[in-house]
Amino acid sequence: MLTSRPLILISNDDGVTAKGINELVRMLHQSNDIIVMAPDSPRSGSAAAITSQTFVNYSHVHHEKGVEIYQCSGTPVDCIKLALDTVVPRIPDLIIGGINHGDNSAVNVHYSGTIGIVLEGCMKGIPSIGFSVCDHNPDADFSHTIPYIQRITQETLHHGLPKGICLNVNFPTNPPYKGIKICRQTIGRWEQEWCKCKNPRSNEDLYWLTGNFTNYEPEKQDNDKWALEQGYVAITPTQIDMTAYSIMEELHKWKLD
Amino acid sequence: MLTSRPLILISNDDGVTAKGINELVRMLHQSNDIIVMAPDSPRSGSAAAITSQTFVNYSHVHHEKGVEIYQCSGTPVDCIKLALDTVVPRIPDLIIGGINHGDNSAVNVHYSGTIGIVLEGCMKGIPSIGFSVCDHNPDADFSHTIPYIQRITQETLHHGLPKGICLNVNFPTNPPYKGIKICRQTIGRWEQEWCKCKNPRSNEDLYWLTGNFTNYEPEKQDNDKWALEQGYVAITPTQIDMTAYSIMEELHKWKLD
Repeated sequence: MLTSRPLILISNDDGVTAKGINELVRMLHQSNDIIVMAPDSPRSGSAAAITSQTFVNYSHVHHEKGVEIYQCSGTPVDCIKLALDTVVPRIPDLIIGGINHGDNSAVNVHYSGTIGIVLEGCMKGIPSIGFSVCDHNPDADFSHTIPYIQRITQETLHHGLPKGICLNVNFPTNPPYKGIKICRQTIGRWEQEWCKCKNPRSNEDLYWLTGNFTNYEPEKQDNDKWALEQGYVAITPTQIDMTAYSIMEELHKWKLD
Repeated sequence: MLTSRPLILISNDDGVTAKGINELVRMLHQSNDIIVMAPDSPRSGSAAAITSQTFVNYSHVHHEKGVEIYQCSGTPVDCIKLALDTVVPRIPDLIIGGINHGDNSAVNVHYSGTIGIVLEGCMKGIPSIGFSVCDHNPDADFSHTIPYIQRITQETLHHGLPKGICLNVNFPTNPPYKGIKICRQTIGRWEQEWCKCKNPRSNEDLYWLTGNFTNYEPEKQDNDKWALEQGYVAITPTQIDMTAYSIMEELHKWKLD
């Protein structure tokens, strides 16, 4: 593998055969060396989960000039951890999660395996980006994302990112896109989350996770949901430090000791 | 169930039979009504993962005065989501994750199923606390945590917590504890994370997740790792908003459009 070109480590949570990750490799492999280590099956909603109760393993599934693709039995975060300790010839210049089939804006950052990848890369001190399109279709059209992904990748390789900060990039449902907005994470929550069904054999109740997202600040024009609804590509810079500094003084007044 | 007493919804990631969660119920049930919905098996390292590829179900496993215990086939976050939509008679006054067998300070917040529970409760607008002891022993001694957990729970019920903020409480390995410190999340990362073994039947390489935590700021006296090492109970207020506001101005200077 050429070492003069940037090395990008890619994973996703839709699995190694998903269209999104394979389109991403196609968009980036001409200017970069690529290593993919992705889950061997869909792992949507994995967050930053790690495999703690059993082992994981991996295998090599594809080689072409400048592109090596591996699949792993573990979670998206396992994939990054394992790739960094096994298959990379050197520390990657960039880690990318995606392209995810589905929206990772707002509080979805907490559930998203794509963002788990990005947080893991960031914790390892490597600039990291998540790309997601607001379209769950397995055959989603990613063609309009190409110039954006190439430019955001290029600029991130050029500027780097401060320690502890990564980028969460979401594309609206319908192209053409109006441009880019730098956003903050929308405040809101999921509601009516369960679809109750019956096991037709045992008559037992089964629950499938679904739900509707309620945006608590639909009028605000600086958050990622607003940008997406207006047709902009939303870049939400995201940080590892989750400390709620704003309440520290107040907590000192509580009768805790 | 009495409605004049506070209602606390409890889950964990060590599973419904773990000592930690059952000790927690014992500590709190005299002053509060308790509903437990916990995973039917260990789910350590689940983060805020949700079950997206299949259904989940739950069953009632124990009843005593003021205490109802359910087990669920899903992740810790599924447990909270499902309990809120099925078994609770009203919105709980508090959600607790724990007591976790193991340290959830520093970047462990991102991997922890216990913290997944707490973030989920917080996203639902309910004051939420995670309790963890820095001791993985399944038979860990929780007796020294009792006065602290009762007081922190009482104070949180009394004061409430601002929207989007929850508490991550960690107890040091060795009691007696020196008191409480309000902390920020320690900066550091896990390294040497994989233990490579052989499948004795196929000779295939297998990887078990392990690792050592490297603290990047061991000299700082305001973070949770420092507090725990000094013998203090560490309370790290934690927030849902992960936006990296500090880099937003800089990103506007990038050539993205």
